[in-house]
Amino acid sequence: MNFDPPESVKPLLDKVERFVADHVVPAEGALLHGFDEKALAPLRAKCKAEGLWGPQIPKELGGLGLGLVEHGLVSERLGRSPIGHFVFGAQAPDAGNLEILHKYGSAEQKARWLEPLAKGELRSCFSMTEPENPGSNPTLMSCAARKDGSDYVIDGHKWFTSSADGAAFAIVMAVTNPDAPPHGRASMIIVPTDTKGFELARNIPIMGDAGKGWASHGEIWYRGVRVPQSYRLGPEGAGFLIAQERLGPGRIHHCMRWIGICERVFDTMCRHVTRRKIDDEKTLATRQIAQAWIAEERAEIDASRLMVLNAAWTIENKGFSAARESVSLIKFYVAGVMMRLIDRAIQLHGALGITSDTVLAHYYVHERGARIYDGPDEVHKMVVAKRILQRYQQ
Amino acid sequence: MNFDPPESVKPLLDKVERFVADHVVPAEGALLHGFDEKALAPLRAKCKAEGLWGPQIPKELGGLGLGLVEHGLVSERLGRSPIGHFVFGAQAPDAGNLEILHKYGSAEQKARWLEPLAKGELRSCFSMTEPENPGSNPTLMSCAARKDGSDYVIDGHKWFTSSADGAAFAIVMAVTNPDAPPHGRASMIIVPTDTKGFELARNIPIMGDAGKGWASHGEIWYRGVRVPQSYRLGPEGAGFLIAQERLGPGRIHHCMRWIGICERVFDTMCRHVTRRKIDDEKTLATRQIAQAWIAEERAEIDASRLMVLNAAWTIENKGFSAARESVSLIKFYVAGVMMRLIDRAIQLHGALGITSDTVLAHYYVHERGARIYDGPDEVHKMVVAKRILQRYQQ
Amino acid sequence: MNFDPPESVKPLLDKVERFVADHVVPAEGALLHGFDEKALAPLRAKCKAEGLWGPQIPKELGGLGLGLVEHGLVSERLGRSPIGHFVFGAQAPDAGNLEILHKYGSAEQKARWLEPLAKGELRSCFSMTEPENPGSNPTLMSCAARKDGSDYVIDGHKWFTSSADGAAFAIVMAVTNPDAPPHGRASMIIVPTDTKGFELARNIPIMGDAGKGWASHGEIWYRGVRVPQSYRLGPEGAGFLIAQERLGPGRIHHCMRWIGICERVFDTMCRHVTRRKIDDEKTLATRQIAQAWIAEERAEIDASRLMVLNAAWTIENKGFSAARESVSLIKFYVAGVMMRLIDRAIQLHGALGITSDTVLAHYYVHERGARIYDGPDEVHKMVVAKRILQRYQQ
Amino acid sequence: MNFDPPESVKPLLDKVERFVADHVVPAEGALLHGFDEKALAPLRAKCKAEGLWGPQIPKELGGLGLGLVEHGLVSERLGRSPIGHFVFGAQAPDAGNLEILHKYGSAEQKARWLEPLAKGELRSCFSMTEPENPGSNPTLMSCAARKDGSDYVIDGHKWFTSSADGAAFAIVMAVTNPDAPPHGRASMIIVPTDTKGFELARNIPIMGDAGKGWASHGEIWYRGVRVPQSYRLGPEGAGFLIAQERLGPGRIHHCMRWIGICERVFDTMCRHVTRRKIDDEKTLATRQIAQAWIAEERAEIDASRLMVLNAAWTIENKGFSAARESVSLIKFYVAGVMMRLIDRAIQLHGALGITSDTVLAHYYVHERGARIYDGPDEVHKMVVAKRILQRYQQ
Repeated sequence: MNFDPPESVKPLLDKVERFVADHVVPAEGALLHGFDEKALAPLRAKCKAEGLWGPQIPKELGGLGLGLVEHGLVSERLGRSPIGHFVFGAQAPDAGNLEILHKYGSAEQKARWLEPLAKGELRSCFSMTEPENPGSNPTLMSCAARKDGSDYVIDGHKWFTSSADGAAFAIVMAVTNPDAPPHGRASMIIVPTDTKGFELARNIPIMGDAGKGWASHGEIWYRGVRVPQSYRLGPEGAGFLIAQERLGPGRIHHCMRWIGICERVFDTMCRHVTRRKIDDEKTLATRQIAQAWIAEERAEIDASRLMVLNAAWTIENKGFSAARESVSLIKFYVAGVMMRLIDRAIQLHGALGITSDTVLAHYYVHERGARIYDGPDEVHKMVVAKRILQRYQQ
Repeated sequence: MNFDPPESVKPLLDKVERFVADHVVPAEGALLHGFDEKALAPLRAKCKAEGLWGPQIPKELGGLGLGLVEHGLVSERLGRSPIGHFVFGAQAPDAGNLEILHKYGSAEQKARWLEPLAKGELRSCFSMTEPENPGSNPTLMSCAARKDGSDYVIDGHKWFTSSADGAAFAIVMAVTNPDAPPHGRASMIIVPTDTKGFELARNIPIMGDAGKGWASHGEIWYRGVRVPQSYRLGPEGAGFLIAQERLGPGRIHHCMRWIGICERVFDTMCRHVTRRKIDDEKTLATRQIAQAWIAEERAEIDASRLMVLNAAWTIENKGFSAARESVSLIKFYVAGVMMRLIDRAIQLHGALGITSDTVLAHYYVHERGARIYDGPDEVHKMVVAKRILQRYQQ
Repeated sequence: MNFDPPESVKPLLDKVERFVADHVVPAEGALLHGFDEKALAPLRAKCKAEGLWGPQIPKELGGLGLGLVEHGLVSERLGRSPIGHFVFGAQAPDAGNLEILHKYGSAEQKARWLEPLAKGELRSCFSMTEPENPGSNPTLMSCAARKDGSDYVIDGHKWFTSSADGAAFAIVMAVTNPDAPPHGRASMIIVPTDTKGFELARNIPIMGDAGKGWASHGEIWYRGVRVPQSYRLGPEGAGFLIAQERLGPGRIHHCMRWIGICERVFDTMCRHVTRRKIDDEKTLATRQIAQAWIAEERAEIDASRLMVLNAAWTIENKGFSAARESVSLIKFYVAGVMMRLIDRAIQLHGALGITSDTVLAHYYVHERGARIYDGPDEVHKMVVAKRILQRYQQ
Repeated sequence: MNFDPPESVKPLLDKVERFVADHVVPAEGALLHGFDEKALAPLRAKCKAEGLWGPQIPKELGGLGLGLVEHGLVSERLGRSPIGHFVFGAQAPDAGNLEILHKYGSAEQKARWLEPLAKGELRSCFSMTEPENPGSNPTLMSCAARKDGSDYVIDGHKWFTSSADGAAFAIVMAVTNPDAPPHGRASMIIVPTDTKGFELARNIPIMGDAGKGWASHGEIWYRGVRVPQSYRLGPEGAGFLIAQERLGPGRIHHCMRWIGICERVFDTMCRHVTRRKIDDEKTLATRQIAQAWIAEERAEIDASRLMVLNAAWTIENKGFSAARESVSLIKFYVAGVMMRLIDRAIQLHGALGITSDTVLAHYYVHERGARIYDGPDEVHKMVVAKRILQRYQQ
């Protein structure tokens, strides 16, 4: 039993921490709202120059090739700035797309899309969720790709296709085999965004902020979009399987990023209460409710980190199926911890907390989705409970 | 004992309800973000034409002259749209300013500022909160007005001066008697916004949205602002007293508006769950957690309304001091109910909930301040508990 | 609109309050655990002598004949002592039995059981809940009464037959018409407890305390219990209807009693924190968390009272069906408020709180059932939500 | 990084688990209320025979000599039965007394008290808390030991001296140096319970249950109790230091025991919901709220275990001061998790949950103190927050 990070990764963690503190956090103010890849270019170049680019990207593609636990620890540190993952080439949805292109891509697909993606030379998006269908039930999907000669012709309506604005290509999940069993109906298909019929209807305003470029969530119409069948990623009917493989480690990544956010927010909160005067002598730090919240949040952040690292370690050492329950548990647990903490930090900041003068408002608005995307809390709870209760059925 | 609204006000309530449903809610979409008085003009004209203008404005100033309970009931109905109070001439901060101008204004002040304000011909703002000082401790105030001949010269830094953008005048709270006992140091002074030295530094971005016009919160520098002493509102040193008088009934108004918001959100949530399919047959309305939340929220909204009406009724029938505890209790209780409800409604909407495609996101962002302004929850709780515990001190 | 108690009842409330404070609370210590009717006799005699006996008992039966709101207000005051309702002849389950005997009893039944019950000369119990079947689903009932000549022969297994120990008779709910539609299968039958085959298996230990006499909850076997059919109370098949009629106002009574408990606990808590030293100078009353809890609990108790009185007033003035939702809401809302308050009061008392040296431990143990009996919270929430959502179904 | 229990301890854990399941749990029913050492004797003998006695007792005293992490893992398994620790010789307060006797005892003290204690031949108690003084402030202590010749003469009033009923000796904390700085005023003194003036006033009823023997909490008067100064344990004035040393690892032990309780309760709850029918076809396991609670509780129990093991591991590998915050955090975090879980398990059991027919009621009553003893939650939160905030003070 050993709760320390692996020795091998400690120097890297220190380096990442310093880079984030020295270069990323100071730059974030200007970039927070509606940044695009051009604005980040100098920071990304610096990151590459220091040998920190792509912590999770395979070495043969120019990254550091870290494992799940190691990248988790890095990811927490990147999460301390809203732009951290973008600077290091570890941002969603590119990271997940990169993973599945690496595993399932043909040589041609890899040359055309994977390699420039890994270098940060182009951007991508992932088009699965549909406004008319509940994301929690993947057998309800309307977007269809029918074969026509050697092509697919895709018709559908997607939203929350994050970063579609400016992406070079989308990986689209579409029903190709409507008569197959529910989980074998869909396939993944690569669609260059300049294909005729690909229409980015809008960047969806999230809590009033539509964002732009990377920091956006697109609503997309696919109207008779025609691509060669060779653009299909992986086997026909493997859409759900690939989506699941993409989401599993993705949950670890998300959770570790959220813990990074938690540490940033916790730090902001502690700093504020020790500086804010409530009368001529005392600061807000002397208030018992502030103290109680700080203690409770410290406990919950620590709990979160241990649970996520434990899940990551279990995946790496005992396989994904040994970690299935843990992965479901952390998804809702850590998201809940994060949102409660953000809310309390705002409350302790008073009027300042609701302004955009601190990073808190950004998180309050842009991380609220954490309890919803990739399955709302309530669905994850049902799934994990059913799995647990199976062991008790007679 | 009688829990029904007064008979006398029922026809008016019906009329208001219909007006809001038929004219206000349909118009809100276009107006929600950054509206100004011009955009609202046709609706306000219609409201006047139907004899509904100014429910809380005294009759001699052209309003309906409703009492606290009656206006509370109207205010709930206006609260069902984010623009309701603006359409009816009952919006903060003008409503509060109107009250204190009516009570304390000189004949000259009334002619110049109160009358056009009551007609909706000009707008106002209220400049009390300071970024450097906790709003919860009114004896910590830096903005100062020193006498110079027959003038005041005001220097200070204020923020959360709501609706300053476009206002004709501000009512500024400034220290005029620094050597008086703490609660007698400040006075209220009317400052036309075109006075030299009045500088609107910015509309403060709230959760990323700076708004404009009425729907904005200004940060203001007062740099050597010179106005005649005759612009002082009420007696010298009466600033805190007037602020308190303004805030007391203001809490009733806020709370009833919040209950209107709650009803709107509750209705939105119930409609959504009965329409959202979770599989081929069932809707989200069949889920036990959705049901539990609906039941819990219904209980808390009902509790909120009863508490606020009870407080309003007590003020009207037994005087403000008999209602002091109730007024503190409703401030934090109702704000808490509202924010929990909004959060749950978002959660039940899934991805749709965090978009601006429903009214929920607007409330999530723009009502978060309810638990902070006019005293954070934690301060109200301390105040009311100390008052209760005094009765137990030996 | 009028939030004051009816003028007519105020003198009575004062008198009851004084009687409880002067005579009931001082006596409760000795009686708290396992009291029986003999021990209460002197107090009950005094109560009768002062003309306070039977606030809810019809006048023709020797009581005060109060309506729902009036008795609710009295009941709150009785609730301030765990033995209050027993002293005044308003205790469950006798009060509910009295109601249905009064409404449905034959002349013979009234003479034999109702009249001595109203005078407090004998005791009764109500035998509905079965250990093998969920109380929340009344169509699942196993206890059966089959006709045999002019008799019923009853076989069944009941528990939570409160006060069976020492009762003269039970009102038993049993299936008489197994082939009728679900809600028309059962009837109410009066069973003298000395009938052969009536076996009180045990007083069920509640949290370790089995109690005795009135303060007990019996598990009962009915083994071939034979009674004349003339002992049936009300029409054949009317069991569920009568049970519902018994439970409806019963919820008002329970809730008002719980509010009385809340006031007692709140008072105990406030008294303790103002007396408990935390250092040489300060008491626990200066702690912000104690203050926050006191404020939050004050708000929730006030909310509870307003909700229950509103429900009672609605029943009296608009009929039960207008109050159906309110009655479901108060059941879980007030029970939740009470249990949270008790828990916090214990926490503020520290080690003293878990001892039986205050009344808190008694409530913690013996009121936990409030969130369960007469339908667990979760079932009430489902019921009320379904009713609300019906209005939204298209 | 390695989240697995040490390989070395796995066989022992399996053996302990089997012993608890096969021998301890089946016996607990008869022993649950008011057991004493005689009733446990056969089980203890069996435990010794299997070589499982005294997991935390040093090897030279006949135990297994486990370290903190190893014993923590064992302790969790013992915690699955309310009598587990008693059977294995690991029960409070003897375990803590054994530790300090081992570290501070003179040769004579060890021979007379430590050795028979380690063998389970006699019992002990620990007498620190005073009813008149807050346990959270150790500088407020009234019990005094004045020197008289070669003796101490002790006068004082203590309570929550657990297991005093039947103990051979008490370790009493008493002020010996009233003029020293606050933390150097008290000493630990061994008092045989048959010393004149040692008066066990009562076993304090906890939630109505006074218990007896081991399972009791004594209120004790020390009236002129005279013992030789050689009975002092450790240096003069070292009382607080020793108390702290006793409490630190004690928190790990408590927390791991609570996690054992959590697992027992979780298991009971899962078993119940999969067996309890809610209609002819479905069980309670199909209810979404039951599922949500199971998922949430699973997450919190897992979080608890990871946090406590991490704290224990840190103490063992980096020293106690590196773990100070963690130890404070787990005290309130795990106690809170346990009590919420117990409450929810009761709720899901319905009426059965409040009876003593399951183990739940025992825990509800007898573990409520967990949030209070050894410092109430609120005090631990203040302590840990102040420590954290020190790092932010400028």
